[in-house]
Amino acid sequence: MTFTAITDALAGKSAVGETVTVKGWIRTRRDSKAGISFLAIHDGSCFDPIQAVVPSDLNNYEEEVLKLTTGASVSVTGTLVESMGKGQSFEIQATNVEVLGFVEDPDTYPMAAKRHSIEFLREQAHLRNRTNIGGAVTRVRNCLAQAIHRFMHEKGYFWISTPLITGSDTEGAGEMFRVSTLDLENLPRDDKGAVDYTEDFFGKETFLTVSGQLNAETLACAMSKVYTFGPTFRAENSNTSRHLAEFWMMEPEIAFADLGDAATLAEEMLRYVFKAVLKERPDDMAFFQQRVDKTVIDRLQSVVDSDFVRMDYTDAIDILQKCGKKFENKVEWGVDLNSEHERYLAEEHVKGPLVLMNYPKDIKAFYMRLNDDGKTVAAMDVLAPGIGEIIGGAQREERLDVLDMRLGEMGLDKADYSWYRDLRRYGTVPHAGFGLGFERLVVYATGMQNVRDVIPFPRTPNNADY
Amino acid sequence: MTFTAITDALAGKSAVGETVTVKGWIRTRRDSKAGISFLAIHDGSCFDPIQAVVPSDLNNYEEEVLKLTTGASVSVTGTLVESMGKGQSFEIQATNVEVLGFVEDPDTYPMAAKRHSIEFLREQAHLRNRTNIGGAVTRVRNCLAQAIHRFMHEKGYFWISTPLITGSDTEGAGEMFRVSTLDLENLPRDDKGAVDYTEDFFGKETFLTVSGQLNAETLACAMSKVYTFGPTFRAENSNTSRHLAEFWMMEPEIAFADLGDAATLAEEMLRYVFKAVLKERPDDMAFFQQRVDKTVIDRLQSVVDSDFVRMDYTDAIDILQKCGKKFENKVEWGVDLNSEHERYLAEEHVKGPLVLMNYPKDIKAFYMRLNDDGKTVAAMDVLAPGIGEIIGGAQREERLDVLDMRLGEMGLDKADYSWYRDLRRYGTVPHAGFGLGFERLVVYATGMQNVRDVIPFPRTPNNADY
Repeated sequence: MTFTAITDALAGKSAVGETVTVKGWIRTRRDSKAGISFLAIHDGSCFDPIQAVVPSDLNNYEEEVLKLTTGASVSVTGTLVESMGKGQSFEIQATNVEVLGFVEDPDTYPMAAKRHSIEFLREQAHLRNRTNIGGAVTRVRNCLAQAIHRFMHEKGYFWISTPLITGSDTEGAGEMFRVSTLDLENLPRDDKGAVDYTEDFFGKETFLTVSGQLNAETLACAMSKVYTFGPTFRAENSNTSRHLAEFWMMEPEIAFADLGDAATLAEEMLRYVFKAVLKERPDDMAFFQQRVDKTVIDRLQSVVDSDFVRMDYTDAIDILQKCGKKFENKVEWGVDLNSEHERYLAEEHVKGPLVLMNYPKDIKAFYMRLNDDGKTVAAMDVLAPGIGEIIGGAQREERLDVLDMRLGEMGLDKADYSWYRDLRRYGTVPHAGFGLGFERLVVYATGMQNVRDVIPFPRTPNNADY
Repeated sequence: MTFTAITDALAGKSAVGETVTVKGWIRTRRDSKAGISFLAIHDGSCFDPIQAVVPSDLNNYEEEVLKLTTGASVSVTGTLVESMGKGQSFEIQATNVEVLGFVEDPDTYPMAAKRHSIEFLREQAHLRNRTNIGGAVTRVRNCLAQAIHRFMHEKGYFWISTPLITGSDTEGAGEMFRVSTLDLENLPRDDKGAVDYTEDFFGKETFLTVSGQLNAETLACAMSKVYTFGPTFRAENSNTSRHLAEFWMMEPEIAFADLGDAATLAEEMLRYVFKAVLKERPDDMAFFQQRVDKTVIDRLQSVVDSDFVRMDYTDAIDILQKCGKKFENKVEWGVDLNSEHERYLAEEHVKGPLVLMNYPKDIKAFYMRLNDDGKTVAAMDVLAPGIGEIIGGAQREERLDVLDMRLGEMGLDKADYSWYRDLRRYGTVPHAGFGLGFERLVVYATGMQNVRDVIPFPRTPNNADY
């Protein structure tokens, strides 16, 4: 592989006057009357294409170069020179253009060099990374993921794998996908005529996990600091811009930590990863700022520069009740907040990210730690302007007697949680954690409007294409 | 969180004479006749526990300290001093011992401070990270994963997500798990009486993926260098030390690359990640060397130091036929190699990792590039002594006419691969990639004997516990 990535050529990592080879796809071809062609070539390594100036005296100029269209693949060799063009640092004076692959019927090529609607691009998911916007999303998504791993590693957290296929249901509720190898046309039956899951692959009913948290707690209660970063599933029939049936989640779990510690970690992590994006992907961020969301760079910068507001649920209810704004859904202590409430708080009241804490116990899961007031639990949501909940977390109930009481209140069977209860029987420790919806993070960082546009092949109701 | 990780205390990151607090679990307690107790405390941050020397004049010495047993959780504050003990750098002269959680009925605590069988630990998956071996595996696993991301990032690869839930079947074969939200007790039927999958969540039959490769190819043909790192599934009823129903796989896909380039990337990556483990986890590796596999450090070092042998399948057959060794399975050109053959080649002939290349086309998948001989395809397997296949890869068929011919030969329907074929219709490029089985890598790096012991909660036939 003796060729140069376009990002390196444009950054001047090869000396001016040196012979370089770049390989990529044609974005545009322009022919001058003087008998010179200008090829804009991209290879995905950075936002900008590099320009190759192709003289007409090349052997294959008439036969091949003049037939190059958007999407064709080439290997271009030539001399790296400083560009006279505006905004371009370097370009290539081509001495050889090898065509690797033409575009079959250019008139019907879906990714013609024009602006496509985001919905059209979604239907061409296998090609959309060739566009400016598709490439930019993929690079920023990668940058965020790498920054998450780097941050957690530097902080002493161990990345762990929690199982995707599970016999348990983390939330005690939640719609899940069944995983099975049973032949649906010929289901085994037990002696009562019910489906016999002992014949299934795992010898019982199994599902795709909605969270790795309970499993992660077992590792935190041994390794102190761990996190998962993997796919997660919701079989909810939600056709919204914020929901996917399959999405990536990052879940840290911290021993010897309380809710405030988890909020601090969330805040430090967001600050770190946004800083990384602003520093490492200025090219893509300039594009998002110009074409997608004029406020996106300022928004990330303000997260980097300021502390998150922390607010108790009880105070938030008070603010919402007194703000004079009319909401569709009633606001009173005890209700779960709706999107309109969260947006008001983040966008109008705080005007920035907000950590809401200590929710009523009746609207939260059994494993969240009961506060001393007996009414609220140590839960938190991080709300971001424009997207709403981006992180949900909690301090976990580490007291066996209280946990058992909460399981009972929720009608859950202690026996189903024996290994989870063991953590409280054997050297229990205060611990806390959260889950970050990765696609929501990418949406927030890019200004894109829909999670379907920031994951390569989105899975939503009635859609598992590709 | 104003306390010190034990790894930092042992590394002398706090000054001698400073007051520090550590939090963790008791590994052992020893009481001297002089009325002093010695607590060995671990917190997962490194292999070694730290010793806390507890004088009997602490308030809670009789009531609590003398009742501490293996697995109990404590917060210990005291002065960091140089240790007189052998092999220990620093210890703590305790001035305060706070008990966070005792062990309920210490006599039945499963993780008592003794040597447990690996099978017993597997049955206690929620607690096994508290043992020396469990913690060491988790730290080395993390180290390998972090090193993979770091290596790929430095090389200019973008991490991407390919879908887990899929309507396609990468290999054109392969046993898969069904994903469904249909009510099995009440299946919808079409007018012919068959199960009506249009009523299922995605409007069609869906499964858990066996590889992200085909999807990754679409991104490589836009971004040039990408990789996946995520869970993968096999619904095979294999009860072996090398198979899991759910495992993690890392799959790079490289545009403008041939089979040799893919082999080079595999080799460089393995060298990089083993170097990282030897450098970053000497504590855990010393333990594996001492207790698990006396050759493990040498083995990794030899991978770091030497080039991999590359061998054609055809030459390998020749070697096997002439080696004079009797194999259970017949060796002749055209057969797939068995484990006994692979082991002979890697362990006895080469005595190190080996890249086998260019297999007969009839035993390989449709997407592998047909070589000029018309008989073999540009496929490779990296075989490692002791574990066998650790990486499988190929150059992909980039020529549409040849791909279509191969689809036909295999009885596959072109229409099912329309988006995959588009990559060959629109600016096709040579490209190649491979898949690394992550648990096999961890087995190789630690000397552990079974993939079930290097993933926190293994999924195997009849086992989806936790």
